[in-house]
Amino acid sequence: MDNQRPNTPKGTRDFGPDQMANRSYILTTIKNTFEKYGYQPLETPGMENLSVLMGKYGDEGDQLLFKILNSGDFLKNVSPDDLEKGYKSALPKVAEKGLRYDLTVPFARYVAMNQHEIVFPFKRYQLQPVWRADRPQKGRYREFLQCDADVVGSTAPVCDAELALMINEIFENLGIEDYSIKINHRKILSGIAGLAGNQELENAFCVAIDKKDKIGTEKVIEELIRQGFEENKVNQVMPILEMSGSNGAKIKKIKSLFETNSLDISGIENIEQVLSVIQKLGKNISNIEIDLSLARGLSYYTGIIIEVSLNDGSIGSLSGGGRYDDLTGVFGVPGIPGVGFSLGFDRIYDVMVSRNLFDNIPKSTSKVLIASFEAEAFSFALPLLQQMRDAGIASEIYPDIVKMKKQLRYANKKQIPFVLVIGSDEMETGQLVVKNMSTGEQNKINKDEIISFLINNI
Amino acid sequence: MDNQRPNTPKGTRDFGPDQMANRSYILTTIKNTFEKYGYQPLETPGMENLSVLMGKYGDEGDQLLFKILNSGDFLKNVSPDDLEKGYKSALPKVAEKGLRYDLTVPFARYVAMNQHEIVFPFKRYQLQPVWRADRPQKGRYREFLQCDADVVGSTAPVCDAELALMINEIFENLGIEDYSIKINHRKILSGIAGLAGNQELENAFCVAIDKKDKIGTEKVIEELIRQGFEENKVNQVMPILEMSGSNGAKIKKIKSLFETNSLDISGIENIEQVLSVIQKLGKNISNIEIDLSLARGLSYYTGIIIEVSLNDGSIGSLSGGGRYDDLTGVFGVPGIPGVGFSLGFDRIYDVMVSRNLFDNIPKSTSKVLIASFEAEAFSFALPLLQQMRDAGIASEIYPDIVKMKKQLRYANKKQIPFVLVIGSDEMETGQLVVKNMSTGEQNKINKDEIISFLINNI
Repeated sequence: MDNQRPNTPKGTRDFGPDQMANRSYILTTIKNTFEKYGYQPLETPGMENLSVLMGKYGDEGDQLLFKILNSGDFLKNVSPDDLEKGYKSALPKVAEKGLRYDLTVPFARYVAMNQHEIVFPFKRYQLQPVWRADRPQKGRYREFLQCDADVVGSTAPVCDAELALMINEIFENLGIEDYSIKINHRKILSGIAGLAGNQELENAFCVAIDKKDKIGTEKVIEELIRQGFEENKVNQVMPILEMSGSNGAKIKKIKSLFETNSLDISGIENIEQVLSVIQKLGKNISNIEIDLSLARGLSYYTGIIIEVSLNDGSIGSLSGGGRYDDLTGVFGVPGIPGVGFSLGFDRIYDVMVSRNLFDNIPKSTSKVLIASFEAEAFSFALPLLQQMRDAGIASEIYPDIVKMKKQLRYANKKQIPFVLVIGSDEMETGQLVVKNMSTGEQNKINKDEIISFLINNI
Repeated sequence: MDNQRPNTPKGTRDFGPDQMANRSYILTTIKNTFEKYGYQPLETPGMENLSVLMGKYGDEGDQLLFKILNSGDFLKNVSPDDLEKGYKSALPKVAEKGLRYDLTVPFARYVAMNQHEIVFPFKRYQLQPVWRADRPQKGRYREFLQCDADVVGSTAPVCDAELALMINEIFENLGIEDYSIKINHRKILSGIAGLAGNQELENAFCVAIDKKDKIGTEKVIEELIRQGFEENKVNQVMPILEMSGSNGAKIKKIKSLFETNSLDISGIENIEQVLSVIQKLGKNISNIEIDLSLARGLSYYTGIIIEVSLNDGSIGSLSGGGRYDDLTGVFGVPGIPGVGFSLGFDRIYDVMVSRNLFDNIPKSTSKVLIASFEAEAFSFALPLLQQMRDAGIASEIYPDIVKMKKQLRYANKKQIPFVLVIGSDEMETGQLVVKNMSTGEQNKINKDEIISFLINNI
């Protein structure tokens, strides 16, 4: 066999034990919150038919899908002609499947396939990797985890409100405090697009506004004019988007503006209802902020939109979502509305690393290592080891007879908090040395009391 | 957009909330056991470079790998000549990556890449899906979960022994009782291959023996003769493989046979050591059985081999593994021995379904549903809902005002154990009706006592 320098594909990562401990801490926090709010887990395959995936993410998205080569002779339908026509026309002949690009389209497919068995409103969460053939860069990977929660089959404001509460609970539990939950409403943006001279171009309006943080207000104005909005109206409208003040003040101002211009105020009323539900739920809403410049690029949102970012602006959005009218129309099942959001797992991870929020997460699964001075110690140690495990204490024995220093180094590196040292003295007297690896403290404990000592000290 | 009848790719599955509850029960049991024995989690990417995967699973395995089409113009290096030469020679030009086929090769790649950071002995477990372009059939999927645990960097018998203990603990906790853990040793098989006339053909011997359950003893004999073994010797050897009796009796018989024929008895001694460690660990070993006909087809095993099957023979092996000398030599890092095993997650799942072992697994995450008769009830219900969640009780409110029957049906289908009914009477008196959905029993409980009632009754 040939020797290779093995590596992982560009943009993908291994997660060793330490990273797994941290990741699992975030995932458990997310999962527990979702479940506390009545959401149930769903998993879909990593592979989907390309007919399900293609055309759902725009042309650029289609390009970024990882496609899977058909099994067997994948070239059997490819002719020299196809080579000349180019890869796009050959694609359907060589690949029928692709890797999951997000969790929304597979969820929509699942709902469309199982519409008669599902009990609506259906609250589902999904924590699974997705794959995108994006150019890898800092914080952007080709395989990364998405964490979505959606409720479909209800338009009630309590559903929208609970998203904000779940976000609040997750970030609080993770120890991330200085964030804002920004909300807006597509119907408000639609009204403002009307004020800018063209309500029908709502989508183009949102796409342009969505870039404000990246390209600045002036470039957005230029793009809006290029898209067909009127220059003087656009200039009048920009200050509205940047409106400051309390949520109540913003609602009051925008409502009166809309009423003056005979625009639909149902979006404003919907935000009011959602905020009122949050208040009734008795939660502090100080970090929920109406931001009329929040647009979110995706065209399928039709109601409230939501985005979470750090107040210091040190990283892009940590979470985003919104309400949509029609999840499954594209799969032939119209009329299923819903609201949902997605958590940016890797960004949350990076924020927590930079703030040392993982420092207290135990990296080891084992609580105790038995270290032996000699082979004879095994006969003494093994029954004790089993007793510890039977008591639910994760524990292990260093399997080989090596120098004590090496065994302690193993415990240290693996961050095992206690080491039980067993040699001939210990076997004779039944008094075992328990070493606390973080304080260095050593205790002599009788063999029969070791389990209760450990239970009390772990 | 066009209407499609969406589906999942052949051999892949969605897992809805009920299945997820069952799967998560098995996974948690496995994970808890692995961690109790000091194993730590690892995750590797779904995609691996084909240079890592190809050539590791034999020609058939190479065929069964799912390959990922290169991004962009995947045809740019393909000439009309290549079309004529056939797909095998074109493959390296259109695909550089493939989907993970098992968890062993990615683990070996990880160890080779991180040999200087890893603390040996390295005990890792890995619970991730793998993909194989196999023909789908009952119990065989193209995407399925593998659950592996391996310890590398030690040859101590305690490592081998702990595999059997973990298997024992997992099956016990899952409620599967009538299984056997069959063990054998490659060095014993090698000796028997010698008795059959050709010790150098040990691998061919094991591959043939491994098929005994499928094709029967006679066909195995035919194959062995075809492979170059001597007919009369093969006929003498077959009864040895089928030797019956206690483990102690088998060890005694085979040891004396090997000694008579001057064959290496180190494999027998190794099994004795492993069984002795298990005994010292104080566990009942009644279901561990030496089976000299157990071979396991994989060529990289060099020591103990192990396989778990149901005593009623109703399904193939539920788990298998063994010891190997050289995990990472193929990646340029020789001399890392280890021992490990893999659990057949989907088979275990199927066994548990057929035995109704999931019946008591709660399918719902929510413990309480608040059902309201009227919109006004929300102002009353929402603060209560939040109190329940703050008390750690997973709970939800039916978000829309619909008939009570529909709300109860929702709770029923979702298997939510308690429903809190709130109408004008309840709001006036503060006496809430709590309906136990499994017994039908209703209790009137004061609003202020509702949390403690629920905590005591869930």
